[in-house]
Amino acid sequence: MKNLIVCLLLCSPFVLTAGEGDNPKDAIRKVLDAQVQAWNKGDLLGFMEGYWKSPDLSFFSGNNKAAGWQATLERYQKKYQGEKKEMGQLAFKDLSIDLLGTDHALVKGRFQLQMKQEAPTGIFTLILKKVPAGWRIIHDHTSG
Amino acid sequence: MKNLIVCLLLCSPFVLTAGEGDNPKDAIRKVLDAQVQAWNKGDLLGFMEGYWKSPDLSFFSGNNKAAGWQATLERYQKKYQGEKKEMGQLAFKDLSIDLLGTDHALVKGRFQLQMKQEAPTGIFTLILKKVPAGWRIIHDHTSG
Repeated sequence: MKNLIVCLLLCSPFVLTAGEGDNPKDAIRKVLDAQVQAWNKGDLLGFMEGYWKSPDLSFFSGNNKAAGWQATLERYQKKYQGEKKEMGQLAFKDLSIDLLGTDHALVKGRFQLQMKQEAPTGIFTLILKKVPAGWRIIHDHTSG
Repeated sequence: MKNLIVCLLLCSPFVLTAGEGDNPKDAIRKVLDAQVQAWNKGDLLGFMEGYWKSPDLSFFSGNNKAAGWQATLERYQKKYQGEKKEMGQLAFKDLSIDLLGTDHALVKGRFQLQMKQEAPTGIFTLILKKVPAGWRIIHDHTSG
């Protein structure tokens, strides 16, 4: 009996990594919630965990494109961690999550940032893909 | 023999509507090319053929959202066909088409408009879905 339990624990598909047992929409929402929590602790690298760590990640903002995870990180560092910059407090609003087949999703929403002096806001389109690490943003288009 | 040929013509999967026999990327490119051709003839309704004719179409531009095909058409009419407005000549550049599963695609690119006095440009993210009518844009995010 003990062996059976050990076997079940080791071999069963119910041995899941965090979030893997969620339905896709819940799993995606957790990724986005984790991004917001990381941002609001000033943890930019934690926020970047939501993005696909690949040179094929693409990030569109206004009239500019960043190609790859590293360039996306550097754009965030420059915009929010440079001299006299602040990250502020982030919130995502009006989120909608649509699954596109089994391995991709379209997420639409609005971001709001509460800074000391201003409160920038804008809208975004995210494409997420289910990769081995979990659901990750493979394309981000943000404008405001 | 004649009956066999008639049957083949009527029943065969090779009886295709226009573009249906293309591979998905070619079919998507034809939809976008047709949009550009329609725009450049001043045919806004022809251009709108590329969009999913549904209240669930979403169109994001800058900090604004339009919900549905009709609202998207009206936004284009107001912006490009109002008093003292012009449609100009449209070109799509730097197009990339990535299939997301079998029935969806992510298209990224840049638009360029040549007007009489100015030449606005911007970048876009399109999500297309294969619907019974063919590949159609179900979400457009444009910024510049």
